[in-house]
Amino acid sequence: MQNGDTSVEQAEIGLIGLGVMGSNLALNIAEKGNKIAVFNRTPEATKKFYAEAGELQGQIIPCETIEDFVAAIRPPRPIIIMIKAGDPVDQQMEILKPYLENGDIMIDAGNANFRDTIRRFDNLKDSGLTFIGMGVSGGEEGARHGPSIMVGGTEESWKRVEKVLTSISAKYDNDPCVAWLGNDGAGHFVKTIHNGIEYADMQMIAEIYGILRDGLKLSAGEIADVFGKWNKGRLNSYLIEITEKVLRAADPITGKPMVDLILDKAGQKGTGKWSVIEAQNMGVAATAIEAAVAARILSSQKDEREAAEKIFGVPKALAVPADKQAFIDDLENALLAAKIGAYAQGFAVMAAASKEFNWDLPMPTIARIWRAGCIIRSQFLDEITSAFTKDPHVANLIVTPAFAKMVQDTDAPLRHVVSHAILSGLPVPALASALGYFDAYRRGRGTANLIQAQRDFFGAHGFERTDGVDKPHGPWGSGLDIFGK
Amino acid sequence: MQNGDTSVEQAEIGLIGLGVMGSNLALNIAEKGNKIAVFNRTPEATKKFYAEAGELQGQIIPCETIEDFVAAIRPPRPIIIMIKAGDPVDQQMEILKPYLENGDIMIDAGNANFRDTIRRFDNLKDSGLTFIGMGVSGGEEGARHGPSIMVGGTEESWKRVEKVLTSISAKYDNDPCVAWLGNDGAGHFVKTIHNGIEYADMQMIAEIYGILRDGLKLSAGEIADVFGKWNKGRLNSYLIEITEKVLRAADPITGKPMVDLILDKAGQKGTGKWSVIEAQNMGVAATAIEAAVAARILSSQKDEREAAEKIFGVPKALAVPADKQAFIDDLENALLAAKIGAYAQGFAVMAAASKEFNWDLPMPTIARIWRAGCIIRSQFLDEITSAFTKDPHVANLIVTPAFAKMVQDTDAPLRHVVSHAILSGLPVPALASALGYFDAYRRGRGTANLIQAQRDFFGAHGFERTDGVDKPHGPWGSGLDIFGK
Repeated sequence: MQNGDTSVEQAEIGLIGLGVMGSNLALNIAEKGNKIAVFNRTPEATKKFYAEAGELQGQIIPCETIEDFVAAIRPPRPIIIMIKAGDPVDQQMEILKPYLENGDIMIDAGNANFRDTIRRFDNLKDSGLTFIGMGVSGGEEGARHGPSIMVGGTEESWKRVEKVLTSISAKYDNDPCVAWLGNDGAGHFVKTIHNGIEYADMQMIAEIYGILRDGLKLSAGEIADVFGKWNKGRLNSYLIEITEKVLRAADPITGKPMVDLILDKAGQKGTGKWSVIEAQNMGVAATAIEAAVAARILSSQKDEREAAEKIFGVPKALAVPADKQAFIDDLENALLAAKIGAYAQGFAVMAAASKEFNWDLPMPTIARIWRAGCIIRSQFLDEITSAFTKDPHVANLIVTPAFAKMVQDTDAPLRHVVSHAILSGLPVPALASALGYFDAYRRGRGTANLIQAQRDFFGAHGFERTDGVDKPHGPWGSGLDIFGK
Repeated sequence: MQNGDTSVEQAEIGLIGLGVMGSNLALNIAEKGNKIAVFNRTPEATKKFYAEAGELQGQIIPCETIEDFVAAIRPPRPIIIMIKAGDPVDQQMEILKPYLENGDIMIDAGNANFRDTIRRFDNLKDSGLTFIGMGVSGGEEGARHGPSIMVGGTEESWKRVEKVLTSISAKYDNDPCVAWLGNDGAGHFVKTIHNGIEYADMQMIAEIYGILRDGLKLSAGEIADVFGKWNKGRLNSYLIEITEKVLRAADPITGKPMVDLILDKAGQKGTGKWSVIEAQNMGVAATAIEAAVAARILSSQKDEREAAEKIFGVPKALAVPADKQAFIDDLENALLAAKIGAYAQGFAVMAAASKEFNWDLPMPTIARIWRAGCIIRSQFLDEITSAFTKDPHVANLIVTPAFAKMVQDTDAPLRHVVSHAILSGLPVPALASALGYFDAYRRGRGTANLIQAQRDFFGAHGFERTDGVDKPHGPWGSGLDIFGK
């Protein structure tokens, strides 16, 4: 182990926290030719990690003390902290701080709430140290072989880590999926919205799966065939690819399709919830993401659902449409249409946050670095990259020429599928939310005039008129005829 | 004006802030035979208020200084603060504090965020003073003649104000619409969820209005007839009543229906947003409320909507069903069904918060005090009161016998209406969300098994099995075949 002897070549970067994600990230860094110092609270984990690193040992400096660890890194020192999000990060930072010098960079690579990241960044402002909030997507596999990396912090600190992060990131046609997105919490914010979109994407796939399973009565294998085919078309993406794979897998114990034996209770971690909360804080409609988070919540209420089914029964699904293949084609298009809605919402939330926090988030870059490495990677994101590159400040993805065309092509199938599911009693909350979003967004004259009339009636809230006349209250009579007005 | 002479009969209560809401509340208190001391930052407002109080002057002690104001109130002094929510409340409390004595009660009657209320309550804990967070619903008219009042604070402080508040509250069949709901922020929390439900209620009415206006091409007057008729049936409620009224009103300038001249941009204040955020914090699905808040947000993006309409056009609505009256009857039932979903969600959020904050919120009481005075008052809430009285700890309103029956009766019309609207391109996001909620809630076997499979595939999150076997990972092969596992 490292003994503080600085005659040894110093590490380009350090990493604290050798859990699965941290270990994989460290191996990825080492493999790409970067020397890395590693430290774990329990030295046993460090030893085990080093012992199992095989031919990568030459690139790794395992350290037993914080002092040795810090000394092993070339200043200014970038130190990745990859531990449980929340208080442990603050504690780790306090432990590290006394050992660090001017210009050193603490990098939180966990799933932090970006508001914590802003706080941590601000707290270091006068210390000479600085902070990077780094969103890493791609799961364990991505961390090991190439994740999508979203960086927030000062541009100077980014310059220090750019080479290492570029080397370890996923590549899309040789284009690295890593970028500096803005100051303080920008990286973690974008990662949060990435996850919100991921929730919506997965929920929409699950709803389509439900129509195939419970509406068309297809087997897991047959549904795998459908997704496999779709993965060769416009829906081509990692999530569609793994959907085919998991549907294809057999349970080693029973030999039955694995998915049929998995309990339908999905947990949710912080990022889905945060996406919705921040959409609310920014005043942006994000109904597809909201529907997806709600669906996970309801999935976890299995006992209540079973009790309710005893009361209401399962409705008899509509007859399978005569042309089954045509209906399956509609499902493909419906999924694409709904996906556009979810992504449009996610990008709208980011646009609003970019203003709110003065990040100047580069939308084309965000789409670009999501094309590979991360869970929502897809061909679709390449199309979003093109659309935003042509018009980075467009009000909404839906109205870019390429996506407007796509919506026009897929709008009818989405309508058909949602209507069919609703009449069959099959839950399609996220698909329906995406459609409702589109229908509200594309209607010049909505129905909020009635809401304004009601609010003025009971609360004298006032309204604007379509003819521009400045007369903000209605002639409601006794409703407002009260003392004080 | 009051000169501090304590030989005059002291006031039962004090009120600071003579804006429209404060003035109305003060007049209501005076009219019900309670002596009240009033104070406003600008003495002119106090003078004007007193001058216009007419025959109620005998019950009112107008005060020019805080000192006189406090001296005019019988200890322990309940003092209602009815000013702009947020920092002004904290500032007012700091100003008041030095004049108060042990046992005195500061009462925030504004639309506070309940988390601020908890903080204010806690901050006073060791001061000998105490704090009530009081939700007041019913708008200006309600404040003047009988609001619904939701009280949070200590039981002791409630006892001190119970008589006054009972006298001024709305009555439903002589039953006062006021109650102590729990400690600290309980009252303001319940008021927030009341408003969230109000958002959903109004949005659903607006969606039905949209189907009548844009689908069935009815005039404002014809739609008024429809709502007028519904107000005599199961939908009987204040909001349906005023919907008829505002649809009936003519613009004094043009003579045209007033609603047709009101701009379709609805604002949103904090409580809608807070409802959604707290639903997320509590982990409760509240999609109808979320859809309603989103609809308001989209309504405010008028320019974007008009631009999108230019691209996509307005879809041609489906032909009016042959039996128009039967379809209108379906709309009535659909609105009732969707309303059940929205209320079920609101009560579920309250049930979760009740646990989280140890409030022990009394659900039947909440429904009871909403039956009159507040904006969502209705016959429907009397039915909710009965349902929760029979089973206060039921998991969800939907599964109470009375509401289960109602859902069974109205489920098909809701399905029919939402499907028709979706195929017509008419936005019905809140109606569709309520239906989606019901369809997910009543399904014993959902589709989250696929989501669990995906999450285990890319993140080794693990899952439970339907057969109880403890084997939490799938046979995904190379997807998880990585170093460190």
